[in-house]
Amino acid sequence: MKSTKYVYLFEEADGTNKKLFGGKGAGLAEMTHMGLPVPPGFIVTTEACLRYFENRKRLPKGLMEEVQENLKKIEEKTGKVFGSSQNPLFFSVRSGAALSMPGMMDTILNLGLNDETIEGLIQITSDGRFAYDAYRRFIQLFGKIALGVEEKEFDQILNRMKEKEKAVYDTDLDADSLKDVCEQYLGLIRRKTGTPFPEDPMIQLRLAIEAVFKSWMGKRAVDYRREFNITPEMANGTAVNVCTMVFGNMGFDSATGVAFTRDPATGENILYGEYLVNAQGEDVVAGIRTPKPIQEMKKEMPKIYRELERVRRVLEEHFHEVQDFEFTVEKGTLYILQTRNGKMNAQAIVRTSKEMVAEKLFDKEKAVSRLKPNELEQLLHKRIDPNFKGKPVAMGLAASPGAASGKAIFDADEAERVGKLGHRVILVREETKPEDIHGFFAAQGILTSRGGKTSHAAVVARGMGKPCVSGCEELHIDPKGREATIRNIHIKEGDFITIDGSRGEVYLGEVPTVDPEISGDLLTLLRWADEIRTMGVRANADTPEDAVKARQLGAEGIGLCRTERMFNAVDRLPIVREMILAGSKEKRAEAIAKLLPLQKGDFKLIFRAMEGLPVTVRLLDPPLHEFLPSAEELASELRKLEEMERAFSSMENISEAMKFVDPSFRESLKPLEHMVVDLNEIKEKRLDRKLIRKQQETFRKVKEMMEVNPMLGHRGVRLGITYPEIYRMQIQAILEAAAELIKEGLDIQPEIMVPQVCTAQELKWVYQLVKKIQKEVESQYQVKIPFKFGTMIEVVRACMRAGRLAEVADFFSFGTNDLTQATFSFSREDAENKFLPLYNERKILQDNPFEVLDVKGVGRLMMITIEWGRRTKPDLKIGICGEHGGHPESVIFCHNIGISYVSCSVPRLPVARLAAAHARLQEKEREKEKRPPGKFDPDYPFTVFF
Amino acid sequence: MKSTKYVYLFEEADGTNKKLFGGKGAGLAEMTHMGLPVPPGFIVTTEACLRYFENRKRLPKGLMEEVQENLKKIEEKTGKVFGSSQNPLFFSVRSGAALSMPGMMDTILNLGLNDETIEGLIQITSDGRFAYDAYRRFIQLFGKIALGVEEKEFDQILNRMKEKEKAVYDTDLDADSLKDVCEQYLGLIRRKTGTPFPEDPMIQLRLAIEAVFKSWMGKRAVDYRREFNITPEMANGTAVNVCTMVFGNMGFDSATGVAFTRDPATGENILYGEYLVNAQGEDVVAGIRTPKPIQEMKKEMPKIYRELERVRRVLEEHFHEVQDFEFTVEKGTLYILQTRNGKMNAQAIVRTSKEMVAEKLFDKEKAVSRLKPNELEQLLHKRIDPNFKGKPVAMGLAASPGAASGKAIFDADEAERVGKLGHRVILVREETKPEDIHGFFAAQGILTSRGGKTSHAAVVARGMGKPCVSGCEELHIDPKGREATIRNIHIKEGDFITIDGSRGEVYLGEVPTVDPEISGDLLTLLRWADEIRTMGVRANADTPEDAVKARQLGAEGIGLCRTERMFNAVDRLPIVREMILAGSKEKRAEAIAKLLPLQKGDFKLIFRAMEGLPVTVRLLDPPLHEFLPSAEELASELRKLEEMERAFSSMENISEAMKFVDPSFRESLKPLEHMVVDLNEIKEKRLDRKLIRKQQETFRKVKEMMEVNPMLGHRGVRLGITYPEIYRMQIQAILEAAAELIKEGLDIQPEIMVPQVCTAQELKWVYQLVKKIQKEVESQYQVKIPFKFGTMIEVVRACMRAGRLAEVADFFSFGTNDLTQATFSFSREDAENKFLPLYNERKILQDNPFEVLDVKGVGRLMMITIEWGRRTKPDLKIGICGEHGGHPESVIFCHNIGISYVSCSVPRLPVARLAAAHARLQEKEREKEKRPPGKFDPDYPFTVFF
Repeated sequence: MKSTKYVYLFEEADGTNKKLFGGKGAGLAEMTHMGLPVPPGFIVTTEACLRYFENRKRLPKGLMEEVQENLKKIEEKTGKVFGSSQNPLFFSVRSGAALSMPGMMDTILNLGLNDETIEGLIQITSDGRFAYDAYRRFIQLFGKIALGVEEKEFDQILNRMKEKEKAVYDTDLDADSLKDVCEQYLGLIRRKTGTPFPEDPMIQLRLAIEAVFKSWMGKRAVDYRREFNITPEMANGTAVNVCTMVFGNMGFDSATGVAFTRDPATGENILYGEYLVNAQGEDVVAGIRTPKPIQEMKKEMPKIYRELERVRRVLEEHFHEVQDFEFTVEKGTLYILQTRNGKMNAQAIVRTSKEMVAEKLFDKEKAVSRLKPNELEQLLHKRIDPNFKGKPVAMGLAASPGAASGKAIFDADEAERVGKLGHRVILVREETKPEDIHGFFAAQGILTSRGGKTSHAAVVARGMGKPCVSGCEELHIDPKGREATIRNIHIKEGDFITIDGSRGEVYLGEVPTVDPEISGDLLTLLRWADEIRTMGVRANADTPEDAVKARQLGAEGIGLCRTERMFNAVDRLPIVREMILAGSKEKRAEAIAKLLPLQKGDFKLIFRAMEGLPVTVRLLDPPLHEFLPSAEELASELRKLEEMERAFSSMENISEAMKFVDPSFRESLKPLEHMVVDLNEIKEKRLDRKLIRKQQETFRKVKEMMEVNPMLGHRGVRLGITYPEIYRMQIQAILEAAAELIKEGLDIQPEIMVPQVCTAQELKWVYQLVKKIQKEVESQYQVKIPFKFGTMIEVVRACMRAGRLAEVADFFSFGTNDLTQATFSFSREDAENKFLPLYNERKILQDNPFEVLDVKGVGRLMMITIEWGRRTKPDLKIGICGEHGGHPESVIFCHNIGISYVSCSVPRLPVARLAAAHARLQEKEREKEKRPPGKFDPDYPFTVFF
Repeated sequence: MKSTKYVYLFEEADGTNKKLFGGKGAGLAEMTHMGLPVPPGFIVTTEACLRYFENRKRLPKGLMEEVQENLKKIEEKTGKVFGSSQNPLFFSVRSGAALSMPGMMDTILNLGLNDETIEGLIQITSDGRFAYDAYRRFIQLFGKIALGVEEKEFDQILNRMKEKEKAVYDTDLDADSLKDVCEQYLGLIRRKTGTPFPEDPMIQLRLAIEAVFKSWMGKRAVDYRREFNITPEMANGTAVNVCTMVFGNMGFDSATGVAFTRDPATGENILYGEYLVNAQGEDVVAGIRTPKPIQEMKKEMPKIYRELERVRRVLEEHFHEVQDFEFTVEKGTLYILQTRNGKMNAQAIVRTSKEMVAEKLFDKEKAVSRLKPNELEQLLHKRIDPNFKGKPVAMGLAASPGAASGKAIFDADEAERVGKLGHRVILVREETKPEDIHGFFAAQGILTSRGGKTSHAAVVARGMGKPCVSGCEELHIDPKGREATIRNIHIKEGDFITIDGSRGEVYLGEVPTVDPEISGDLLTLLRWADEIRTMGVRANADTPEDAVKARQLGAEGIGLCRTERMFNAVDRLPIVREMILAGSKEKRAEAIAKLLPLQKGDFKLIFRAMEGLPVTVRLLDPPLHEFLPSAEELASELRKLEEMERAFSSMENISEAMKFVDPSFRESLKPLEHMVVDLNEIKEKRLDRKLIRKQQETFRKVKEMMEVNPMLGHRGVRLGITYPEIYRMQIQAILEAAAELIKEGLDIQPEIMVPQVCTAQELKWVYQLVKKIQKEVESQYQVKIPFKFGTMIEVVRACMRAGRLAEVADFFSFGTNDLTQATFSFSREDAENKFLPLYNERKILQDNPFEVLDVKGVGRLMMITIEWGRRTKPDLKIGICGEHGGHPESVIFCHNIGISYVSCSVPRLPVARLAAAHARLQEKEREKEKRPPGKFDPDYPFTVFF
């Protein structure tokens, strides 16, 4: 049996095999192959880690022998000896799994130090303080990580020493004090573990390797993998990287630093980073010395700078990605200690994507896949000026994107008051409740100290499109004292703060923000996304202005044009009310006749803006009573009128009478425009009784139309069938508008869509109406009007009857807002205010299903619908026009289940275009690897994608 | 090629082959085989009819030759000759398909008469008047049916003759006049058809056969088949029955009559029927002579009566069913002319079912299958006394079952007024509208002249359980004149009328009715049904009283016990309100602690009543605000309080002040129990401000709890999770009640059911709560409490997640009321009032889905749920507890898709038990014939049953 090789020198390892060598190890191996100056070292493979656990936490046989052999080779290369008191070799030991995974072991530096080897270190560096400082750090880290001694015990010793020496910083301690600390540390370890600190460097190394392995199954690492769904296929076990120590603090020809191959904030193609001369990485953390921008190295260490410029080029050419690398300069010699893909903000990703394609570093597909749709969203909201260099004072959850500044205000009433005075306000609360809603309206943004991304604050803010940072736990609010504290920083009511809801950041004061704009680079990237994606992207647009904007943002048509929005316009509403309140068919017909030219005009403008592209017009959907004043409003108005009438009918003296009129009523008389109330009239007791009668009649009608559950009420096609005049008018307006433009020679593609359909009979009924009106209009205008006819799928029964509906419909369009309500039996307004936040908190639901498409419930219904619909009509066009059409994950799901196009709100078009491209790229990846599109659910007869 | 035989003598035909010989022909053939005195004759098969249409309406080749041959045989048998002027043979010619089908051809009697053969008839009968009367009838019928001359033309001739002779009835005309009429008729036919009346009897016979065939495709017959879904498999083509004429009007030794082998009104085992001496069937129709009860024949024609008694016995022994037969006595000889299964009312079916099993005429399965569940319903409502012999004055649709009498009132306001005076009222309207609802409350029953079974009147009446006859088109209503007319009968407002909504009948005056009762015979029949059915039947019962009644009516447990009904009891509601309005957790806990013993007490009584049977208790379902007064109510009360306070705060003189108080308010002060308003207090201006504050607080709370769509709101398990105290209390009450009874040694089977579940997480949450409380209670009482845990399936998402829910649930129970609302996106209250009637009228929906389970939508979801649920847990118990659980067709569907039990309201238990037995019998029938359970729908991956 061939024995497995567990240990590889950097030069032996295959840098593309991250699974075996971990990300960090692979990077070191690659750089070694490329001839970059990596200090010699070796990797213990992830496989050794797996064996370790299989073997009940015992290192695989022969592993330490392999380590020993490789160690020899390194001693040969470096000319140093592990454990020598003359010329000692030290190692850094780091974990490194296939995926970067916070929560695993930190680095152990200076491994190999003991009471003997420290002498060698002192000799080499001629710096006793440096050596003992390195030693005490090593003992502490090793003691904590490999031997399990609590960190605070070490801290106590150090603090006592600092007190004794009146030192403020660690660095104020001299060599002797540090030596004393080291001795006390060694004593501590002996006491706590019952055995002396392992002086033997080989034992140190073995224990360090084991400690790294153990950290793989540590609670934090396991939680992290669960949280981010990291499966064994993605990363299994950790490797151990054992690398020769190099020291950046060996004098003024030494230095340490981190660098990006491009500017991660702007994407600019320059070397970007920071460095410190005569320092180790930890010195930056200690916070006494401020690192310098790397550009200064040009003067200070010109040779090294030139080398770094070369490294930068070599790295990018090799990795085809912006790199974030660590380096150390030891006595004039540059070493590269680590490299990984650089994390950048969205703007930088966009710029580098475009430029690196131009530089042929990668292709367009890679360019598109680099920008995550969620990151793109950052660019679509107001954000902190990227040139602003300040740091946030606290971090919370990125609950609703966008940045906003304003006075911190600690309750909703005050927020409303201050807002009305014209000030900008950030509402700051421990958590929000439904009764805070007026505070939301008044505020520019919301900041809470408690609650997750689905807390009340988060959900409501997203609904309103306002920035929100939630769950900022460092923030302590004292609503009575009207102030908040972050650590030792006090924020008084009225102080300016700034929040960035895209990144969960909180800043003091007013931080400059920039408005969203779509850069030329982004446009290029989106064009490339369009080339890649196979699913269409349309916009939900109700006005000519929206249509123009949608087209600019790349919409390939309108997927949802809501005609009721037109009904609500100021010049229409009175006519619409006239129509609804009409006592007879004739009166209603009159009102409708007035609406026809208005709607036709709207359609003409929209059609013209979308020339050459399809426009899906949805016939009237909401219940008619939505266009009327509420019964409550009317009742209160009516009550006041009646009260007034009563009061005056028996009074001579006006001033006496006024006493009996509700004071709030006297106030409210003025704004009731349609009430012809004149004080003289009142005096003369000529109060208009006709007005009262009319209001009473309206009130009666409104009450008659009221519904127990308007969501499930008399609306959509049900309304169309009971009041056929309305749909007739709308259809006529659509077809006449199309006819007039077609006559002009334009390419007009109207699509008529019926809402709330639950049975094919409804659809047939409307279709016959459309065909009839089509004939009339075509003969009147003497043109052929090509149009498509389709149905919303937003009622569950429509899903069940998809096969029949497809006999009548040219297209389906999923209305996932209503479909989600019906599938969950949740009324969105009620749910988001009353129980959804709690449901998310208790993990009963993972997401808010009104934001993230519920693939297991609603998604499954959609799959059934598509399956049955296309069984009847294989080329059935199927869209989605709910809000989910602009949500990245949901867009990807739509692609996977065979949706023809998504239609989303205009501002979300870029996100949808990008997400659709990502969906196609992921699919290509799967095709290449012959992977199925999702896991198979035994519940379900078809394949399931989630 | 073997030529097909188209014509069969009665003795040749196979009486079991109704498809080939039609129902009537098969009966004649059977009776001939049995040796009953059937006049000789032959049948032309349905196959000949099909060939006729295939052959573009030409008789199949050789058919008339076959007829001729068979005719010869009949001439031999009877010694008479077709077309002879001496001893002529006449025939009756009748249609007869496999299923009885009104709307096809009537009988042609006396075929073979012409100017020659009439001489023979005169000779034989020595009665010229009789002969010419027969002749003119024959010419008219033949002229109309075979030659297409309009009936009214004949009537004109006859009427002119009657005027001329001053005759009132046809029978007042003498032989000469009738001869004259015959001649005029012949002239008419010559004029209208252009050819003389066919004198040749063979031509008459051929034309008559063709006329029968043609009637198969006549409009009325085609419509009838479409209306009742009669497919070609059930009946295809009509046969023609050609039978020797016998005359019941050849003197006082002749007679004609119809008889049932048992009394069709009571089921009593006696010969039942009517006869007329010296008469033909038509004389009964003419309406001058009243037929005598058949019992009188015992004296008048004792020999014939004895023969009839024998016929009755022979028929039942042969057909194993009550028969309805026609007979004629010609000169002392009895002939049986037709037999068919007797139509009986429900009571008679029940009695005969039981007795005929005892008489071994058929088995229990047949006995059960004879009683249709819809007919059984007749017995469960008040109905017209079966001994009442009066006839209805008009017929409408049987829109809502039951009988009721009352004063006819023509509008809702008046109905309310008269009802309040203590009178019984029948609301009589052309049609009803939502605003008539107060009239429904006031009325005993509703009668409309327009609208179908799904009109507003029908739907609302059924909802209220009140009798309704709708669409009574003979009824003309003059609401202004406040009267209605039926033909020439006037009904003035206040006149008593009676309606029978089970049969669609309208009677004048107050007709005696009988209360529903379940007879011993019916109990026997239901016991047999229980032996047959395989699906369980449980009751929806919320109180101990209901539980006792349910058990008496054969419930095998309670499938739905709604705990909220207990909350609504008078002694509970104040505590429930206290719980809801509690300002703190502690206050809420106090209120809940008061509820616990009350609920426990309820459960103990119910469990005890159901000992040995399962009781499914549903945890609280409706939103809490349903237990509070409505916001409107509170607002109006509050307004009055405030108005009052204001008025009195500035007044000295109470009487002056009262002027400014809403007069309606002064009225309404008294019933507001919790308002301590005392006129003295008012005088002393001590109006209780605390009361106002309290009401304001309640008002605020109620407004806060109000929901936009309560149906989809904060209810069911959502409530349970947000206010865990409530579910905890209920679970504790259930388990403690069970524990106490188990200690007594009783067999208690509680089942805990969670409403409104949409995800397995919810169910798990409640399950953990139950397990925890179970442990506590078990350790407190030191007993094991066996219980089952399950979920309602009433949210669509639960259907989609059935596989996961089944991991937690022991049982599912479909809540088809809510599931129907969610599937259609129809709010029941809104839909039934606003658009469902129109939808039914326009045939957009066939039925009201809240009454008849929508198998294509909701049913399909149920099938998916069952499929997926049982994939996880093959023995998953699945019930249904919506109203559909008591609807016959829906019960049958439930059986077919594998439901374990239906649970219905207590009064509907008999219907459900019977329907479940029918479902099993139908299934056995299919198994025998190896038929699939329903047609396959290409839409659907599984088999579909409808």
